[in-house]
Amino acid sequence: MEYTKPLQKLIEYFQKFPSIGPKTAQRLALYVLKMDTYEVQSFANAMVEAKTTIKYCSNCFNISQNDPCEICSSPIRQKDVICVVAEPKDLMAIEKTNEYQGQYHVLNGLISPIDGIGPDDIKVKELLLRVHKNDIKEIILALNPSVEGEATALYLSKLLKPFGVKVSRISYGIPLGSELEYTDELTLIRAIETRVEV
Amino acid sequence: MEYTKPLQKLIEYFQKFPSIGPKTAQRLALYVLKMDTYEVQSFANAMVEAKTTIKYCSNCFNISQNDPCEICSSPIRQKDVICVVAEPKDLMAIEKTNEYQGQYHVLNGLISPIDGIGPDDIKVKELLLRVHKNDIKEIILALNPSVEGEATALYLSKLLKPFGVKVSRISYGIPLGSELEYTDELTLIRAIETRVEV
Repeated sequence: MEYTKPLQKLIEYFQKFPSIGPKTAQRLALYVLKMDTYEVQSFANAMVEAKTTIKYCSNCFNISQNDPCEICSSPIRQKDVICVVAEPKDLMAIEKTNEYQGQYHVLNGLISPIDGIGPDDIKVKELLLRVHKNDIKEIILALNPSVEGEATALYLSKLLKPFGVKVSRISYGIPLGSELEYTDELTLIRAIETRVEV
Repeated sequence: MEYTKPLQKLIEYFQKFPSIGPKTAQRLALYVLKMDTYEVQSFANAMVEAKTTIKYCSNCFNISQNDPCEICSSPIRQKDVICVVAEPKDLMAIEKTNEYQGQYHVLNGLISPIDGIGPDDIKVKELLLRVHKNDIKEIILALNPSVEGEATALYLSKLLKPFGVKVSRISYGIPLGSELEYTDELTLIRAIETRVEV
């Protein structure tokens, strides 16, 4: 026994989203049926509107309504430091700390041969061009400590070194407020390896 | 700092879905931006189509393209047993076992005073009418073992008793294939309380 065709189709669409399995897709699709028709229509419109009106900053490739974006065009932000992130949400996380005052560069992905994503599929060339054209002192790599993040960081640091620019990456280690006892082994090994003299 | 308006709006819509928190909503909305415009349009259409074309069986209130639905109109299914479930997905789970051959009644919700859902908000009246009009021998309550499920089961059994119909509920206990050692305490207590003579 199967659900009716239109519902089945909707479930399949939801399943395409990242980290949405068959059960969750079913729950989300059934929820759509419980929403008011008006609300479903507005949600559908919001989706198409977001997709069709969204623009990217042609300098840092963050999501933006203006080009260049607020950060790139801000007169008070430091111009000679670029923090490289994988996704707009990573930029957002750093901005929320209200500490970092430099520029950004959003790769919009990470190098992942398994998924067929190479350096040309993300904004690597554009980063090199920025470093080439501007007087950049430091590039801070703020990528996830995953296989893809590490590979991309390694690749970028090799490409950037010839420019004579300082390349750093955010530190990995034990999260503040957590306890040694509950830290996973890999993080603990990393934390010991990258110990800092006091 | 915030995302651009259309994106912010889309995130808010995703957050309305059950069990979708702010982080997941953000990830889903950002995924929409990565989809092809054509795909976003089709997804939006599929959603509106599912919502506007879907019908419910006027007898058992399951999702259906025909009224009465396949199950209610099947000549080979048992007519005098009704299995009461909360949602179409529960019916689907039972149908997948290929064991049960009776009728269903989909409440389309559970009684939940906290969420302001009373008996009149779910298909209780309609169930009583079916029992009143037809010669029903047994009502099987197949509701989740949650506070809401238990409350609804208790409420229904009180209402159904006067009709002289047998009311049963699916058994709770240790799932087959699992181990005693890893069973949570509440389930274990239940399993002992509802022990069966062998």
